[in-house]
Amino acid sequence: MKIAILGGTGSIGKGLALRWSGMHEIVVCSRELDKAMKAAGECSTLLSDKGLFCSGISGSTNETGIKDVDVVVLSVLYQGIVPLLKTLTPCFSDQIVISLVVPMKKNRWFEYTPPKHGSAALEIQETLPKSVKVVSAYHNVPARKLANLDITLDYDVVVCGDDDGVKGTVMQLTREINNLRPLDGGRLASSYMIESLTPFLINLAIRNGLSEVGVKFV
Amino acid sequence: MKIAILGGTGSIGKGLALRWSGMHEIVVCSRELDKAMKAAGECSTLLSDKGLFCSGISGSTNETGIKDVDVVVLSVLYQGIVPLLKTLTPCFSDQIVISLVVPMKKNRWFEYTPPKHGSAALEIQETLPKSVKVVSAYHNVPARKLANLDITLDYDVVVCGDDDGVKGTVMQLTREINNLRPLDGGRLASSYMIESLTPFLINLAIRNGLSEVGVKFV
Repeated sequence: MKIAILGGTGSIGKGLALRWSGMHEIVVCSRELDKAMKAAGECSTLLSDKGLFCSGISGSTNETGIKDVDVVVLSVLYQGIVPLLKTLTPCFSDQIVISLVVPMKKNRWFEYTPPKHGSAALEIQETLPKSVKVVSAYHNVPARKLANLDITLDYDVVVCGDDDGVKGTVMQLTREINNLRPLDGGRLASSYMIESLTPFLINLAIRNGLSEVGVKFV
Repeated sequence: MKIAILGGTGSIGKGLALRWSGMHEIVVCSRELDKAMKAAGECSTLLSDKGLFCSGISGSTNETGIKDVDVVVLSVLYQGIVPLLKTLTPCFSDQIVISLVVPMKKNRWFEYTPPKHGSAALEIQETLPKSVKVVSAYHNVPARKLANLDITLDYDVVVCGDDDGVKGTVMQLTREINNLRPLDGGRLASSYMIESLTPFLINLAIRNGLSEVGVKFV
């Protein structure tokens, strides 16, 4: 598959690019072409230094990058996501969109601040054309560990979505990353549960002196 | 310590009684004395059959049981909890109360239905005298596994509470159960996060064909 990663210059975006690059064609996207090219180059070099096979990682602007892909990963901040997606609407046709977006703010601690739709995933689904299927996943995989190929991950990834076929595709993409176990989290309306886990996990890590934590359901 | 367990005839109440009975004096409580005595007797027999030391497990009515204890565990259904606690108010002085209570309903799936206070724990704190300190914990430890002493537990227990000393006591009680790791979840106002995990975990188990699941933050 061809996968565009918006916010591909951040840890989690790079991590997904690196972990999927042996099996899929990756387009690292950014508002600025330079940054996207640089991040894609860094990923290629890192894979080549490790002697790992790469199906192709390229850099692109958001507009060009998402046009002809099967999957668009939204690994970006919540702030500004709706205006961003509105400007990108002409570039969407029938892609699968995976939302990692978590609306949260920090006072003394992090706090989940869902929009009136109930979750970022539902707001994103409403913003995009109906032919685009939104799935919610990967909010709670520790970013720096995902981006470090020397670390074997061992986490559960809860996947929410309204289209069972599309959800199955994202669960399969998850299974392709060693030791990530996809779990069906139900419909997109349940996304608030996995989105709200993110600030909760960050607070838990800070309070208890843990490094970034993910979650396992055992 | 002397620990009264309301709802001590259910799996999770029995499980806590069994796991703490080597170190603490347990009072299994129920509305009906017969049921409480029977459950306490079953626990004693089970421990004695396994050759395990027991500091004492007795059965009692709720009213008598909670009077002279250090800790009261509320392992009861949300429905009816407020009227129950109001009738018990004269029996409370300055006990620590551990709430395992989760307000939820089942339509097709389980759904968290917090009261207007934001969580069961906050509502319980408001219902009880101010001298009673409420802590929220143990919602997400699989009940049947807790009650089966042949199973070594390996879960995280997030503990929320407003009094740091009291929260520390409950975290220590948690540590005394092999392989349960207590984590500080912040103030009682954060209890909605761990309460709402319960229906989420039940749904996740059903959807994915898992047996009852708990949680680990890794």
